[in-house]
Amino acid sequence: MMITMAKMKKEAPITGITALKEEDFSTWYTELISKCELADIRYNIKGFVCYLPWATITIKKMYKKYEDLLEKNHHLPLIMPSLIPESNFHLEAEHVEGFAPEVFWVTEAGSSGPLSERLALRPTSETALYKMYAYWIRSYNDLPFKRYQSCQVWRYEGKMTRPFFRGREFHWIEAHNCFATEEDAKNQVIEDMQMTHEMLEEEFCIPIIFFQRPEWDKFSGAVHTYAADALMGSGKVLQLPSTHLLGQNFSKPFDVKFIDANGKEQYCYQTCYGPAISRIYGGMIAYLGDDKGLILPFDLAPIQVVIIPILVKGKEEIVLGKCKNLLDQLSTKYKVKLDDSDGSPGSKFYFWEMKGVPIRIEIGPKDIEKDQFVIVKRHDGKKLFVKQGDLNKKINEIAQNYTTEIKKKSLLDFEEQIEICHEIDSAKDAIENGKIVACGFCSIDMKGYHCAEVIEKDVGGLVRGKKVDEEKHEFASCIVCGEPSSCTVYIAKSY
Amino acid sequence: MMITMAKMKKEAPITGITALKEEDFSTWYTELISKCELADIRYNIKGFVCYLPWATITIKKMYKKYEDLLEKNHHLPLIMPSLIPESNFHLEAEHVEGFAPEVFWVTEAGSSGPLSERLALRPTSETALYKMYAYWIRSYNDLPFKRYQSCQVWRYEGKMTRPFFRGREFHWIEAHNCFATEEDAKNQVIEDMQMTHEMLEEEFCIPIIFFQRPEWDKFSGAVHTYAADALMGSGKVLQLPSTHLLGQNFSKPFDVKFIDANGKEQYCYQTCYGPAISRIYGGMIAYLGDDKGLILPFDLAPIQVVIIPILVKGKEEIVLGKCKNLLDQLSTKYKVKLDDSDGSPGSKFYFWEMKGVPIRIEIGPKDIEKDQFVIVKRHDGKKLFVKQGDLNKKINEIAQNYTTEIKKKSLLDFEEQIEICHEIDSAKDAIENGKIVACGFCSIDMKGYHCAEVIEKDVGGLVRGKKVDEEKHEFASCIVCGEPSSCTVYIAKSY
Repeated sequence: MMITMAKMKKEAPITGITALKEEDFSTWYTELISKCELADIRYNIKGFVCYLPWATITIKKMYKKYEDLLEKNHHLPLIMPSLIPESNFHLEAEHVEGFAPEVFWVTEAGSSGPLSERLALRPTSETALYKMYAYWIRSYNDLPFKRYQSCQVWRYEGKMTRPFFRGREFHWIEAHNCFATEEDAKNQVIEDMQMTHEMLEEEFCIPIIFFQRPEWDKFSGAVHTYAADALMGSGKVLQLPSTHLLGQNFSKPFDVKFIDANGKEQYCYQTCYGPAISRIYGGMIAYLGDDKGLILPFDLAPIQVVIIPILVKGKEEIVLGKCKNLLDQLSTKYKVKLDDSDGSPGSKFYFWEMKGVPIRIEIGPKDIEKDQFVIVKRHDGKKLFVKQGDLNKKINEIAQNYTTEIKKKSLLDFEEQIEICHEIDSAKDAIENGKIVACGFCSIDMKGYHCAEVIEKDVGGLVRGKKVDEEKHEFASCIVCGEPSSCTVYIAKSY
Repeated sequence: MMITMAKMKKEAPITGITALKEEDFSTWYTELISKCELADIRYNIKGFVCYLPWATITIKKMYKKYEDLLEKNHHLPLIMPSLIPESNFHLEAEHVEGFAPEVFWVTEAGSSGPLSERLALRPTSETALYKMYAYWIRSYNDLPFKRYQSCQVWRYEGKMTRPFFRGREFHWIEAHNCFATEEDAKNQVIEDMQMTHEMLEEEFCIPIIFFQRPEWDKFSGAVHTYAADALMGSGKVLQLPSTHLLGQNFSKPFDVKFIDANGKEQYCYQTCYGPAISRIYGGMIAYLGDDKGLILPFDLAPIQVVIIPILVKGKEEIVLGKCKNLLDQLSTKYKVKLDDSDGSPGSKFYFWEMKGVPIRIEIGPKDIEKDQFVIVKRHDGKKLFVKQGDLNKKINEIAQNYTTEIKKKSLLDFEEQIEICHEIDSAKDAIENGKIVACGFCSIDMKGYHCAEVIEKDVGGLVRGKKVDEEKHEFASCIVCGEPSSCTVYIAKSY
């Protein structure tokens, strides 16, 4: 399809990104956000930002991919009200305790003054949905009951906000499922983790590790929380989707029951899963970007191919004619832009590299003479000279391999970031050097809480949990207390 | 693609819709909503409902069609915060006056107590966006500046709520555009009306009339409001998308300026356009549905083809085998369901007719002997016997014509609903008989306000405005005051 990006504001970011990602991740990311026009932080409520078109287009594509996968896995979409009565929250004690400090409350409406009950802007929808699940689920025939919604949630974050990474309003998908048995629920958690790998690693090129979170860091009200951490260039991890085994913790207070095959009433086993698309977008651009700007998976780029005419006096017409033909031809399959605006070819190269357009085609009079096009790939800067007759084939080939190439590069980088440590001091050094530490640990149940506090204080990182897919366990003792180690945990700084 | 609707709850609505649409629209609509499982009104905040999967799937398809059209017409998507500081509202006096009675206010957050400023849940986003537009628009090169967002809005409605028609939270698209000249802005209004026709009439099969609303019924802050009214089966109209010429009413207080080609600072001319997808969905199902249940345009049906095996003892295997082959074959192109659940074929026919599935295929042992399939079209109940070899062709043909057939039927119905009146008494009769009245009227400026009040009181309908595309004007005098008529207006009851 031909793309018609009405007047992308190419003028504003005359200068590109100046900070180096390796040296100053934070400034680099801030420049990326503002110069690529991804978000505007000048909105006049703290912690709330505007998502600009270049980011929004990609986020919508990410939503589409995730929703398609959820539906393939038998989830049906629904749309819930975004307000939740305060009384719903109080039904599950741990949940309300966990979320109370983060809730925005609606207390007044119109000219009618105070409402009779405070209404929460949903920080998550368990307490809205499960009250309805009690109506919707009747018998074992209704199970498994799998639903999702794409929506925003609001959390009054105390931590520092940063566009896409952490904000007081963010955009996610939440899937909420009910099962007849605990085993079915556990299998759903496994499916959730598989979906996470399929989306984050395969589609969005973000390498992740799935951790079972320690008892003190799980979702309020869950039996267990399994969360994916991604490592950013900065040496800190970013929590990406998490899935929660809720057991019957919610089904009992919310009365989510079914009649089993023997006519007996039972409480459902539940799970919930919350991929935060806006945060995954932040993680993706932070992880894949380089000093020139954005790098995007091919499917997710708002513009996939940019055509840049090299105009020489007297040859403008022939060059532009060629460019327009090419635009028509490629637009049947890709999102293509012909940049025939004023400005030098060099500044256009620079601009569209910063925006992360995967393929650039340059066409000048010399190329036309030689019956060739110049193609440049954004992610590795490789330049190819392609005969006119081979162009379609070559573009298709690049399009097909582009995301895989990014993935290979990014997956390699990741393994290097883990450092095995046996002592607090070496762990501290590793964390200071921007690594993730793997070490022995006494327990991720509450009895390990004290050791985790020591790690936070003395090592400078957080215990992220134990790896879900780790079979062997290498460490004899806990890195803190020296007691027998029950598992390998990973320590990292986090956003 | 093969559709896997995990356990659609077929058990619940054993009995179909009992009310007759013609006789009792209101009960019919309520039954449609509940028996087809479109929305659940039991959510425990007044005026807020849950949208169930069958409705959500269609609503998502409607969003996609609308967004594609907006993007084709050079709108770029963005995502704005849903909260708006109270101070933003106060910048445009008419706007705040109009919306103040409808705003939900966030006044508290977390445990930090009252916020320093009340935050509105957006009832519409002018006052959020235009503050940002003042940053984003610099020069004439940035114009036209066309943006949209798909989001929900909240309005504390005093009127009675009804699922999809009117609720305190609804889902819409809002497009907000800026131009250098008033003429450009007026052309945008025309484009908005064209888009409305293209979507509502062509895609969603809802006949509409576009009215310029009277001065007393326009959007708060607008110069003019143009709104589409659709006639429901009930004799009442439903306001569907409206587009507003804002002129410089907002650009001045919000400081949305640009430097023109001569280097001079100018205020932008603005328009905004708000198709409420959830309401359009309500209008569509209400308008197209019949006593059996839903009728849906082919593209918008969550399931497009349902295959129903007619099982006879001893022949189950051969029939089911045939059904499964057909499922695989048709699923490459359509959303297909094989209903091999328990239950009689008759009850399945009934159920899927109620759900509005456009094509039903029946396969029994006799059909297999005769090398044929039975196909039934939902919207007109026509039954076809199709040879196996012709099936694909026939299905494609039905799929292609289905929506056009609905459209023809529904457009014809509409013209019949308008009645030309010259006197209050005949107008009153017409309104009582569920018609729209066309009549002469003195003025849709404020000087006609008194006559409109008389019409509301004595005729029992509202002056919807003058038709945008009406060229000739048939009436000599105002139906109320007898003064010379300046235009033909239309009177109707409304939701």
